Amino acid sequence: MGKAMKKLAVLTSGGDSPGMNAAIRSVVRTCAYHEVECVGVYRGYEGLIEGDFKAMDARSVRGIINKGGTILKSARSKEFRTEEGRKIAYKQLIDAHIDGLVVVGGDGSFTGALIFNQEFGFPVMGIPGTIDNDIYGTSHTLGFDTALNTVVDAIDKIRDTASSHNRLFFIEVMGRDVGHIALNVGIAGGAEEILIPEEDLGLDRLVESLNKSRKSGKTSSIVIVAEGDKIGKNIFELKDYVDENMEGYDVRVSVLGHMQRGGAPSCFDRVLASRMGVKAVESLLEGETNYMVGLLDNKVELTPLEKAIKGKSKINLELLRVSDIMST
Amino acid sequence: MGKAMKKLAVLTSGGDSPGMNAAIRSVVRTCAYHEVECVGVYRGYEGLIEGDFKAMDARSVRGIINKGGTILKSARSKEFRTEEGRKIAYKQLIDAHIDGLVVVGGDGSFTGALIFNQEFGFPVMGIPGTIDNDIYGTSHTLGFDTALNTVVDAIDKIRDTASSHNRLFFIEVMGRDVGHIALNVGIAGGAEEILIPEEDLGLDRLVESLNKSRKSGKTSSIVIVAEGDKIGKNIFELKDYVDENMEGYDVRVSVLGHMQRGGAPSCFDRVLASRMGVKAVESLLEGETNYMVGLLDNKVELTPLEKAIKGKSKINLELLRVSDIMST
Amino acid sequence: MGKAMKKLAVLTSGGDSPGMNAAIRSVVRTCAYHEVECVGVYRGYEGLIEGDFKAMDARSVRGIINKGGTILKSARSKEFRTEEGRKIAYKQLIDAHIDGLVVVGGDGSFTGALIFNQEFGFPVMGIPGTIDNDIYGTSHTLGFDTALNTVVDAIDKIRDTASSHNRLFFIEVMGRDVGHIALNVGIAGGAEEILIPEEDLGLDRLVESLNKSRKSGKTSSIVIVAEGDKIGKNIFELKDYVDENMEGYDVRVSVLGHMQRGGAPSCFDRVLASRMGVKAVESLLEGETNYMVGLLDNKVELTPLEKAIKGKSKINLELLRVSDIMST
Amino acid sequence: MGKAMKKLAVLTSGGDSPGMNAAIRSVVRTCAYHEVECVGVYRGYEGLIEGDFKAMDARSVRGIINKGGTILKSARSKEFRTEEGRKIAYKQLIDAHIDGLVVVGGDGSFTGALIFNQEFGFPVMGIPGTIDNDIYGTSHTLGFDTALNTVVDAIDKIRDTASSHNRLFFIEVMGRDVGHIALNVGIAGGAEEILIPEEDLGLDRLVESLNKSRKSGKTSSIVIVAEGDKIGKNIFELKDYVDENMEGYDVRVSVLGHMQRGGAPSCFDRVLASRMGVKAVESLLEGETNYMVGLLDNKVELTPLEKAIKGKSKINLELLRVSDIMST
Repeated sequence: MGKAMKKLAVLTSGGDSPGMNAAIRSVVRTCAYHEVECVGVYRGYEGLIEGDFKAMDARSVRGIINKGGTILKSARSKEFRTEEGRKIAYKQLIDAHIDGLVVVGGDGSFTGALIFNQEFGFPVMGIPGTIDNDIYGTSHTLGFDTALNTVVDAIDKIRDTASSHNRLFFIEVMGRDVGHIALNVGIAGGAEEILIPEEDLGLDRLVESLNKSRKSGKTSSIVIVAEGDKIGKNIFELKDYVDENMEGYDVRVSVLGHMQRGGAPSCFDRVLASRMGVKAVESLLEGETNYMVGLLDNKVELTPLEKAIKGKSKINLELLRVSDIMST
Repeated sequence: MGKAMKKLAVLTSGGDSPGMNAAIRSVVRTCAYHEVECVGVYRGYEGLIEGDFKAMDARSVRGIINKGGTILKSARSKEFRTEEGRKIAYKQLIDAHIDGLVVVGGDGSFTGALIFNQEFGFPVMGIPGTIDNDIYGTSHTLGFDTALNTVVDAIDKIRDTASSHNRLFFIEVMGRDVGHIALNVGIAGGAEEILIPEEDLGLDRLVESLNKSRKSGKTSSIVIVAEGDKIGKNIFELKDYVDENMEGYDVRVSVLGHMQRGGAPSCFDRVLASRMGVKAVESLLEGETNYMVGLLDNKVELTPLEKAIKGKSKINLELLRVSDIMST
Repeated sequence: MGKAMKKLAVLTSGGDSPGMNAAIRSVVRTCAYHEVECVGVYRGYEGLIEGDFKAMDARSVRGIINKGGTILKSARSKEFRTEEGRKIAYKQLIDAHIDGLVVVGGDGSFTGALIFNQEFGFPVMGIPGTIDNDIYGTSHTLGFDTALNTVVDAIDKIRDTASSHNRLFFIEVMGRDVGHIALNVGIAGGAEEILIPEEDLGLDRLVESLNKSRKSGKTSSIVIVAEGDKIGKNIFELKDYVDENMEGYDVRVSVLGHMQRGGAPSCFDRVLASRMGVKAVESLLEGETNYMVGLLDNKVELTPLEKAIKGKSKINLELLRVSDIMST
Repeated sequence: MGKAMKKLAVLTSGGDSPGMNAAIRSVVRTCAYHEVECVGVYRGYEGLIEGDFKAMDARSVRGIINKGGTILKSARSKEFRTEEGRKIAYKQLIDAHIDGLVVVGGDGSFTGALIFNQEFGFPVMGIPGTIDNDIYGTSHTLGFDTALNTVVDAIDKIRDTASSHNRLFFIEVMGRDVGHIALNVGIAGGAEEILIPEEDLGLDRLVESLNKSRKSGKTSSIVIVAEGDKIGKNIFELKDYVDENMEGYDVRVSVLGHMQRGGAPSCFDRVLASRMGVKAVESLLEGETNYMVGLLDNKVELTPLEKAIKGKSKINLELLRVSDIMST
């Protein structure tokens, strides 16, 4: 371990998620607790390059734990993908006497942090903030639990109208590469089928399943479709397919969209964010670098950034089976 | 006034809306209070033709006041549009010894009720149930207030992510013919512009307004678009237009869709439904027919069905001006 | 009309209510729209005396329309009740070149404003902000609609547990002098009885009503009690009375308390606040003074402050009857 | 393993919690999936003794996954605590040809189940349903996550009014023996102090902490108090103590009460209930008995009922430390 750290910085990067503000607050307050200065960096790596910094003390993060989004804003930075850009960013950090950086974001953001460390030896620590839960090394990413509740609330509302009209609804939820959201909300929302990127159910089986469900006496049905499902059709094509190939269905489509990213974080996400912020700051202060803070078996643990980036977050196969049994 | 009524029926018709169950409950309990029998008709006019009836007492509507949708289900009936269909429906009512009918629905449903009365002299009474608030003779339709809160909650969530990323969002809300929802949620959601069917803002003015808003220092913006807006482009074409004609915007689209129709009714809608149910039943019992129950100046009053159908619900121009001032 | 106004001030006073921030925002933006300066006064009349002012432009009220409470904070001021205190307040306003004052609060705050005007001729305008809806000259005060939804949501939750255990719940809601909240949430929450300050139901009738309800087959019951009910016992004494005088009841008490004052304002309250802010500022600019802005027949109208203070907001007797019928 | 099971029963017992209905649904549907009959027992052990049974098929649990409370109702049974009572219950089960019993409840309910098994050898399986999270052998009990969100939402609302008035709030949350709820909502709600049964902070330290918090510039504060805290005073005495011993505080008390038990279950609780129901039924079918189904390291595992009853659920000391750092 080198010299004692006196000033840390924190930024949010990539898609925003509920809990990012709670994480910022935790980083800032943990710094204050350890009498270390803290600096907020605006607009992710872009603000790092521009030196868009702001000193933050314990009071400056008052009243944000329950706010969605990120007060530090987020952005994607092309420039930080260049060595030139990263060199400028490094200079900004050095000029501001900053000794370590906490990055709240997804795997793209972590890749940037890791390269940055490898080039300049600058201490970095990651906190996984994304609603998709698609990061290896943590059972839950920040915002995942909140997004699940937001989506389930929307499904509950759609079910009201679905069952009043005996309709079939295809509901698209976020998840380009992983089906965590779809799988959980499918079970919680009482969906008849769940289409996820990890599994190609096949159109025939979908049709078969819907027919079986109808024969069993169900008059309305909900199918949850992850953005990145593998069935080979987008959600509107799915509707057309059913319209053409199945009789007697009144099919509707709902794409839940960006509201899934917002809202006041759940209790779970606020507590998780608070815990992760403490761990991230204290790990940096203890001389650690290149780790991601994650939740493993309800404990906050470190995973090397390299593993977090390369590893793959896998869906729980038990949930697939539970979903299957529940739609009996 | 003819012979005393001994049995009434209630049905829900057209698109469902939050508060319909509260209205059913009120109709049933008001019947019980006056010691009149009550019958629920399933699936609107379709169930009327099929004689899909169920006797309902005060206890049978327990626990539904806070449920979205309609326990009697709703449907559109082609057959009821034919004289033949209506003749069968009439026979079903007579065979079941029903003396009057309460119809909860929109103007299409009221038109059916009026024709039905004109042909068979059967007493009918309407309760306006639709989220669109597009019915003459009532300041509020059942479900409108709930839908406003649902939409505003979604806009709040989208704003979290919009302002974290400095984005421009086009959000589509329900309202094919009238802009009531768009206008109210636009003000409540802090939208920069509101596109409604009643007014053609014009693309040029939209662009101008967005540019002005940006110059004033706003980094993210929300534009509310009613389904039936007159700007001549659907919401995805709007996005393309801005992408092509304006620089520096990161434009996103969100279509809120069917979740707007569901959810536990607001306190306002529950109270309104309870009041309307009482008035509808008591008016029938007093020998009235062919009226719609509505809220006028916070009082529950009757408006002739004919007027309710032909009249046009107008948006409050004051709100347009307020919206304009608020986006200063 | 005197000289043109160039600078207005706004303050919030008395108990806070959801929608106060939306009203502040509206006052500030309407000033900006008319190119009039605007100043926020912190902590009500206390801050007025201390000159705790802050210039506010259109951007400074960004992101507050959906926040409960008041960013200007509120307080009760003993000093402002003295002539001496008001003299200092007047001097502060003159020194800051302020030409008119918008007061958001209840009738206590309006009384202060009226006396202030009578003493110094300083133009004042009131906006009714209180959850109790106890002000003459407006069908709705700011925060009333939001509080209703908050309370109904809590009642829905309590009903879950009440009906799982066949319990009788007494639920106390706000309303020291008026029963508006109790009456509306009682109907919307499906309460068996509602105890309000305007009416002394009498213990005997309460017992009779509960017994009747039980005989009709209800196994759980909810009684809504306004803080200021006239039955002569507080809510815990009520429980004791039933415990001692009625057999077989498992009685519980829940006092909802201060959560009723908070939360994101409903769509209705946000729109109402926006409309009232516009009207208040424009009325001052047109030379009006000593009025309260209110909602009458869905229009924003002026009522003399004197009337607003002396008049009494009356409960809607129709609602009492509806409640009675609904608990059939 | 004995003869194949053909019919199972399920009951809910003790205090209700959100997710109980989702667990009932899962038990019923898993039975249907395995073509085993399922019977619902009303009012817990009381209904077991009375033979208050109802056959349940997959359709009969439609639409309950999102409902708080328990459709099977719950009750405490004195009779089941007697051998005589349990003998009758056993006879009822045998007469109805029931082969195994799933008990959803807390440790009191599990004790009853275990004794019942020891006396009659009747196969039993427990599912932990209580908001308190006070059961050994599972990281989460059903309803805990939902209750956390309910409480945090209430705290957010109270904070609105607390910070508008610079007040100190004592908020009492459930937790007679354990501080899980208090600890989590304290962190998530940004409380200055958290008083839990496991730790006696001491009045002096509380006063010191509040004074420190005030000196650091905080003008409003929230202290979370678990029902069973050890500080030796109830929450109203706490208020009096601060009123008498500290200057300049405007102290208020809020007891959240029974609303904490109700409400639509969170996504987490719905998924957990679904998983637990599958595991409980399948374990019985595989010949297991006297176990509780629990969540351990995100997997659904069995713990002997005896251990679940005797073991003690411990609070996470890390959370105490996080809370301390966050209130910096």
